[in-house]
Amino acid sequence: MTVYLVGAGPGDPELISVRGARLLGAADVVIHDRLARPLLGLAAPSAEIIDVGKARGATPVPQREINDLLVSHGRRHGCVVRLKGGDPLVFARGAEEAAVLCAAGVDFELVPGISAALAAPSAAGVPLTLRGVLRSFTVLTGHEDPRAAPADYWHALVALHGTIVVLMAARHIRAIAACLIDAGMAPATPVAAIHAATTGAERVERCRLDALAESRLPPPVTYVIGESAALDLRRPTSMGASRG
Amino acid sequence: MTVYLVGAGPGDPELISVRGARLLGAADVVIHDRLARPLLGLAAPSAEIIDVGKARGATPVPQREINDLLVSHGRRHGCVVRLKGGDPLVFARGAEEAAVLCAAGVDFELVPGISAALAAPSAAGVPLTLRGVLRSFTVLTGHEDPRAAPADYWHALVALHGTIVVLMAARHIRAIAACLIDAGMAPATPVAAIHAATTGAERVERCRLDALAESRLPPPVTYVIGESAALDLRRPTSMGASRG
Repeated sequence: MTVYLVGAGPGDPELISVRGARLLGAADVVIHDRLARPLLGLAAPSAEIIDVGKARGATPVPQREINDLLVSHGRRHGCVVRLKGGDPLVFARGAEEAAVLCAAGVDFELVPGISAALAAPSAAGVPLTLRGVLRSFTVLTGHEDPRAAPADYWHALVALHGTIVVLMAARHIRAIAACLIDAGMAPATPVAAIHAATTGAERVERCRLDALAESRLPPPVTYVIGESAALDLRRPTSMGASRG
Repeated sequence: MTVYLVGAGPGDPELISVRGARLLGAADVVIHDRLARPLLGLAAPSAEIIDVGKARGATPVPQREINDLLVSHGRRHGCVVRLKGGDPLVFARGAEEAAVLCAAGVDFELVPGISAALAAPSAAGVPLTLRGVLRSFTVLTGHEDPRAAPADYWHALVALHGTIVVLMAARHIRAIAACLIDAGMAPATPVAAIHAATTGAERVERCRLDALAESRLPPPVTYVIGESAALDLRRPTSMGASRG
């Protein structure tokens, strides 16, 4: 009896891992988020499907209730798949759910997934790293109020000069842009905004950091901020081929 | 005629994407790195296999030669898979190879993979993010001399107070630890070092930042530096279950 905390990947059902797909096909119960819905076609026909996804407007299922579902089904069934968009440990409360299962004595296993933090830039042809130029990238949640961060947080982020990837920023992206500019980031810094990466609904918009307030892409959006966001590897003029 | 730049994932052949596995099974030619070797069992039996991996001690295949191989095979075959460990755009020169193909007019497609940056912490039970506590994580390459970074780089990284993930740091990890401590990071900061994550050879070591110099794990190692590196989600005492 095991609960598998499985990363569904960024959206395209073919971007789940082979292991994740196999577990879905063998599942007795699938407990899934909204972003993982397109993957349900991979679930065993006999599987019980429980949607705990948060739809816009609807009342979300409280996390405590999700935890209780995981524990109770984990005690009764051989194979329970907790299917989460992206990777279970990247801003997805997978750590909290794992801790609850662990405390309840229910066996669990983490099955990583491709986070939109990596797949969305890739879909837009934006490299997160460039040999000798960009030595790091930082992934941050836009779920929390950026003004609640420690005072030096945004200065530090600007000083890193790396690529910045912001997930789940529907509510706070304007404030994040303002914090970055206040902390000294150039208002002309390129931004790529990728809606619903790797799905049929994917849309990519590019703009300057100081124009982010006008972005009208609906969630989910992954924002990539930094010099590399101006690149598109799929366009010949974007990047010199002389490197390497 | 397309060259697919495919992420092989962190090591476990079951952690490649469904799409990556399908392309491997249909490939006319597979051009692969060392870390992608365990995946070759998924390749079509008829596929030509070209190993451009860098073995320790052996002379590495120059990047220019790899680029030439990609272009020439991309012009001759229907399905060429360039198989790279992890994700093609995370410190893997995938951007350079994409740019070369683009400039040569060869169709290519990026197929993301699960980076060890995410899968290695997951395998060790280390959460990269914690709701309300850790708002970001930074992934950096240990391939470059840390003393060549701008003077404020390490101070900024310390000031972020996020989780730090270091890839490919075999040569420079001691110097990186020294730079972080010089920049004000507590010498007692927890570190988790994960060798060969998700493979049969996986080993996890935990230590303090100031004891990293004594680490004797052979490459490949993923280092996770920060408070969450002391956690192990698989141990009941590691993390309170009251969150959420």
